[in-house]
Amino acid sequence: MNIDVDLSSLREYLTETGLDGYLIDDDASDSDQRYVSGFTAPDPYQTLVTRDGVHLLVSGLEYSRAKSEANADTVTRRADYEYQQLVAEHGQYEGEIRTLSAFLSDHDNQSIAVPRTFPTGTADGLRERGHEVTVEPDGIVTSIRSTKTEWEVEQIRTSQRANEAAMARAEELIATADIEGGVLVSDGEPLTSERVTEEIEITLLRRGCGLDETIVACGADGADPHDRGSGPLRADELIVIDIFPRDKETGYFADMTRTFARGDPGEEARRRYEVTRGAYEAALETVEAGVTGAAVHDAACDVIEDAGYETLRSDPNAETGFIHSTGHGVGLDIHEQPSVSPAGGDLEPGHVISIEPGIYDPAVGGVRIEDLVVVTEDGYENLTDYRIGLEPTTDGRQ
Amino acid sequence: MNIDVDLSSLREYLTETGLDGYLIDDDASDSDQRYVSGFTAPDPYQTLVTRDGVHLLVSGLEYSRAKSEANADTVTRRADYEYQQLVAEHGQYEGEIRTLSAFLSDHDNQSIAVPRTFPTGTADGLRERGHEVTVEPDGIVTSIRSTKTEWEVEQIRTSQRANEAAMARAEELIATADIEGGVLVSDGEPLTSERVTEEIEITLLRRGCGLDETIVACGADGADPHDRGSGPLRADELIVIDIFPRDKETGYFADMTRTFARGDPGEEARRRYEVTRGAYEAALETVEAGVTGAAVHDAACDVIEDAGYETLRSDPNAETGFIHSTGHGVGLDIHEQPSVSPAGGDLEPGHVISIEPGIYDPAVGGVRIEDLVVVTEDGYENLTDYRIGLEPTTDGRQ
Repeated sequence: MNIDVDLSSLREYLTETGLDGYLIDDDASDSDQRYVSGFTAPDPYQTLVTRDGVHLLVSGLEYSRAKSEANADTVTRRADYEYQQLVAEHGQYEGEIRTLSAFLSDHDNQSIAVPRTFPTGTADGLRERGHEVTVEPDGIVTSIRSTKTEWEVEQIRTSQRANEAAMARAEELIATADIEGGVLVSDGEPLTSERVTEEIEITLLRRGCGLDETIVACGADGADPHDRGSGPLRADELIVIDIFPRDKETGYFADMTRTFARGDPGEEARRRYEVTRGAYEAALETVEAGVTGAAVHDAACDVIEDAGYETLRSDPNAETGFIHSTGHGVGLDIHEQPSVSPAGGDLEPGHVISIEPGIYDPAVGGVRIEDLVVVTEDGYENLTDYRIGLEPTTDGRQ
Repeated sequence: MNIDVDLSSLREYLTETGLDGYLIDDDASDSDQRYVSGFTAPDPYQTLVTRDGVHLLVSGLEYSRAKSEANADTVTRRADYEYQQLVAEHGQYEGEIRTLSAFLSDHDNQSIAVPRTFPTGTADGLRERGHEVTVEPDGIVTSIRSTKTEWEVEQIRTSQRANEAAMARAEELIATADIEGGVLVSDGEPLTSERVTEEIEITLLRRGCGLDETIVACGADGADPHDRGSGPLRADELIVIDIFPRDKETGYFADMTRTFARGDPGEEARRRYEVTRGAYEAALETVEAGVTGAAVHDAACDVIEDAGYETLRSDPNAETGFIHSTGHGVGLDIHEQPSVSPAGGDLEPGHVISIEPGIYDPAVGGVRIEDLVVVTEDGYENLTDYRIGLEPTTDGRQ
């Protein structure tokens, strides 16, 4: 990774608490570890941040790559602590703990802080071997990486450009479909969620992005914000498309949602679209450094409640209306700090957040509009360059 | 998921230890949780196995989908325990702990077992609220799911068929490339690792599979077993192709490796290919229920060491030769139980394992041959239907 990781607030925490180091024990799926170590591996490895360095413990298989790629002061392989012999003698679990304990002792780390997600098996094992293990409850590393450097914003922008190309391809398929018996038809076959999803994924793949899931959800499917959608897309119904690709090389995500309808989705659906758009605009107008995520969320809720729909603010058990938060941070994780929800704290310059209000009801379908923005001192810069409109066109990217 | 999950060994453990339940606190990336709950979600949720049921705690957003999809006796949403109010009053971390504690108390769970990977933040938080939290060290759930049902083997077979189609596409590109100035050329452009990888991924995508990484590694790149490879593929050099796709719907992986060379990779490379093939065959001949993974690994090491190459058995710090284990379980995780390594215990019918010896040296390149097999009472069934040969053809699937 090409970023200068600023771990000073983590080191301040170590100094304040008198702990020797901060240990992460996870694999590539842990973005904190990827960020701190500048390294990813399919299998677990350990990253130790001390007051003066970053130290990695890896398998022999990862050793040369870690030495050349990681942002680490030292890289040690497990075999240096007689890992195989310890496993043979004490079993897998105890052998791993003893190896890690030797690595910690090698770096004079008797007392360590760990993230909330640190494996309890490792924590309890190290405690049994005399180490003091304290959970760092605030997610300092997650917080550090919520503020993006210019380089990171550039990576997210690259993912977002790929995202827009994929959305344009999906919108084009919907815009140019024929309508036969109430169903969208393309190349003589029903245009299904699955077909649109495949085209989205291929478009992303050709731009170096992957994704685990895409949402192309029509009608009642779209009223469940996490339903991926399936089957033929129908005319006169709302179609929610939410794409959140990740650049395979850099690991940075983008996130965008648009809602379309062919034919006439009806007056109520059109009204919900306009209310959602109003909530989206109100939320965006609120975004600037120093404003809380909660205030941005409130701005969206105000518009939606004023229009007569429920929100989780008006009813925590609501199953229709605006039933999620307004947004979330996006970076190496698709959902990360800061939160744009009732719990959201101060926004800071360099925070990259989604703004994505929506209104849902199985009887009407779902509407969601989502852009990705970077918070600035006096507002935001929109990283999304994509038209907002219910009627699909073949020129969504303007 | 269409499988009858047999949790009896987990419940025996609870009875023996006198603990009330077994709690998983993770997200969709935790295959144990996916297996036990029959549910996946992008955000964390909790699965509690008690002596007589499986109970889920989810966000409101996941509630209806969990109710309809999960293999659970009860599904509760956090709001039922006043989650938002607790977070508002006590902060995110403490609010989550109190919500989870209320859920546990609701199911009369005072003392719980947790997996090794259980978050320390949650474990310590629950302990502070009076719960007894014990790490279950042996990975009982991971062990349960290492034995596949017929339905699961069928899903892995489906992923493997997609894998073979992708491998055939890659082999075809290499087989039909022109050679210009020592470099493979296709459609007038250098045939790069990246181009072959893209074709592999598109082939998989059209069959409903995704993958995070693929290895198409030429020359010295291939001598690092985890290097994905980059740049133009060259004639007269070894090219390692390792594909491990996951079916997006079922979550089951497949895994296969072949090594090819265009032109003449040299006598030493050809010898290594034949030795690797011999090790692969020796390992396969050893596979049957009751034999240990360690014995299968030894069979591969014997062949490679007899041919004069190093292994991690002959030198734990070896950086060339056979520098990884012979195989691993494959299922909802790409690397899971059982291990076909020095630590590998008894193989059982229904274990699905890779057999993948290799020989590596930056000066010569890498060779690896890998098939996926299911262990049977008296041997194995090979789930891989793909020719083995160094010279690429346009008909790899026979």
